[in-house]
Amino acid sequence: MSRWMAAMAATVAGIAIAQPPRLPPVSMAELLKASPASDWRALEPENVMVMELPAGRVVIELAPDYAPANVAAVRALVRDGYFDGSFVTRSQDNYVVQWARPEEDERAKAMATRTLKAEFARPIDRKLPFTRLAYPDTYAPEVGFSAGFRVARDPKRHQTWLVHCYGSVGVGRDNAMDSGNGSELYAVIGQSPRTLDRNITLVGRVVQGIELFSVMPRGTGTMGFYEKPSEWIQIRSVRVMADVPAGERVDLEALRTESKTFKALVESRANRREEWFKEPMGRIDVCNVPLPVRVKTQAGGLGTTNGR
Amino acid sequence: MSRWMAAMAATVAGIAIAQPPRLPPVSMAELLKASPASDWRALEPENVMVMELPAGRVVIELAPDYAPANVAAVRALVRDGYFDGSFVTRSQDNYVVQWARPEEDERAKAMATRTLKAEFARPIDRKLPFTRLAYPDTYAPEVGFSAGFRVARDPKRHQTWLVHCYGSVGVGRDNAMDSGNGSELYAVIGQSPRTLDRNITLVGRVVQGIELFSVMPRGTGTMGFYEKPSEWIQIRSVRVMADVPAGERVDLEALRTESKTFKALVESRANRREEWFKEPMGRIDVCNVPLPVRVKTQAGGLGTTNGR
Repeated sequence: MSRWMAAMAATVAGIAIAQPPRLPPVSMAELLKASPASDWRALEPENVMVMELPAGRVVIELAPDYAPANVAAVRALVRDGYFDGSFVTRSQDNYVVQWARPEEDERAKAMATRTLKAEFARPIDRKLPFTRLAYPDTYAPEVGFSAGFRVARDPKRHQTWLVHCYGSVGVGRDNAMDSGNGSELYAVIGQSPRTLDRNITLVGRVVQGIELFSVMPRGTGTMGFYEKPSEWIQIRSVRVMADVPAGERVDLEALRTESKTFKALVESRANRREEWFKEPMGRIDVCNVPLPVRVKTQAGGLGTTNGR
Repeated sequence: MSRWMAAMAATVAGIAIAQPPRLPPVSMAELLKASPASDWRALEPENVMVMELPAGRVVIELAPDYAPANVAAVRALVRDGYFDGSFVTRSQDNYVVQWARPEEDERAKAMATRTLKAEFARPIDRKLPFTRLAYPDTYAPEVGFSAGFRVARDPKRHQTWLVHCYGSVGVGRDNAMDSGNGSELYAVIGQSPRTLDRNITLVGRVVQGIELFSVMPRGTGTMGFYEKPSEWIQIRSVRVMADVPAGERVDLEALRTESKTFKALVESRANRREEWFKEPMGRIDVCNVPLPVRVKTQAGGLGTTNGR
């Protein structure tokens, strides 16, 4: 983008150039460091789930704009303590981890037949932000970002939906579309399984701690389920961030996907100009674009960010 | 494909149909079970590396057609025992694990300045098989499969190259293109980092045991390097399969990516017809197509396969 503008400016000035000039490289860290505070949004505590595992904390941001009924159901289960003492029961390599209460558990039995409407996609709504990614996608006519989430759109169907990328969190279901009720959740730990898009309800994404999921030993049963309960990994608790006492909270903020800094970040990741790169692609897949999240510090300084 | 043919046949027979009939679902296991032996190829023992880790065995198939000099260099190092007692020194979440001898090791020092020509891409050659995937790709004009490897092509540049997917194995390098010499290797353990395509030499892919890499604890240093040598994961040995004594060998065979079974597999994965799926995508990304590998059994029966 801006390098083409620079090239045009150079041409206007009468300088013959064979190729557009290569812009100086800018790292993600530099871009974020230079970003104004207004390019960041605090995560809404009602939309954040905090899971405590033996290995540490996983933080998930929920997306009520894309799955209001399912997000509400998950939030209610969390507030009811449903996931306290539940387990990660499945870890399938290059695919998903999944957590739930054991099937024989009384509360799990009570949930087994509860249905909830599927929210695989929703109508396109102009009130929802959409920052389109300019590059072709294998699976959808349009892909991009909406208030911090990776999404796709199909204008002909007038539909938009959250897409399955590394870290996406969804509601497990059986064959019936309405059989997922929020009591079994999964997170993607491998190559984006986009075949699941519009086939299952996504409710959010992991914004911190995905590596705690992704290193879990793989289950040796069918579909990566652990074969023995002794292999299950206990979840101490899951809480809504709004309910977490102030001293235990972590105030996270996310780079606004509608911001100038994010636009510059996408461009810099699609056109890597660091010395190491010899053939900048000029393209990037929606699942490869980092969505930076940092700990909000007192001094307004920079906390941790994800990305690679 | 064939469902459209069935639809056409129905039309010719004078039966009015609103939609093409939905074919009966076929699972990957069923397709593979029904495949003729001729659709499989034995892995060439000279092109297979066997790594012994504390947690088990990782098997890597090399692709000399795409990186002849680098494959030869890696094979020579393996035969020289270079990787015996080396370490996985890096595990970066959603990206790569990397292995090498420690920097201060005498043999590593001797390799530090050795250069080797980069093989980021190669000329298209009609003698190399290419089974094109019919769906659009974000990064390359054409993608598909060549003798068991995922590849891309650019007819305008007359180039073809191995692409970065989960399990791809490459030759680490510094900023200079020829600074990778095969003494530091990496394997992809996350979302396909296609930005690396044509920027670094790939030499093959993990065909068995990738999950041993992907669950390794993430390094907390820059770029996922382990901060302390005590965190390194020792590699007992790496051998060329041809050198492994008969009793310790594992005879693997791979589904030919030029076979009818593979074509049917791609179609069935792009159009999931199992009852669970409600909206078959009709598309699939090159990195999401499984490349089945199985243990060759005496009776010709079915061994293990990868995929999801």
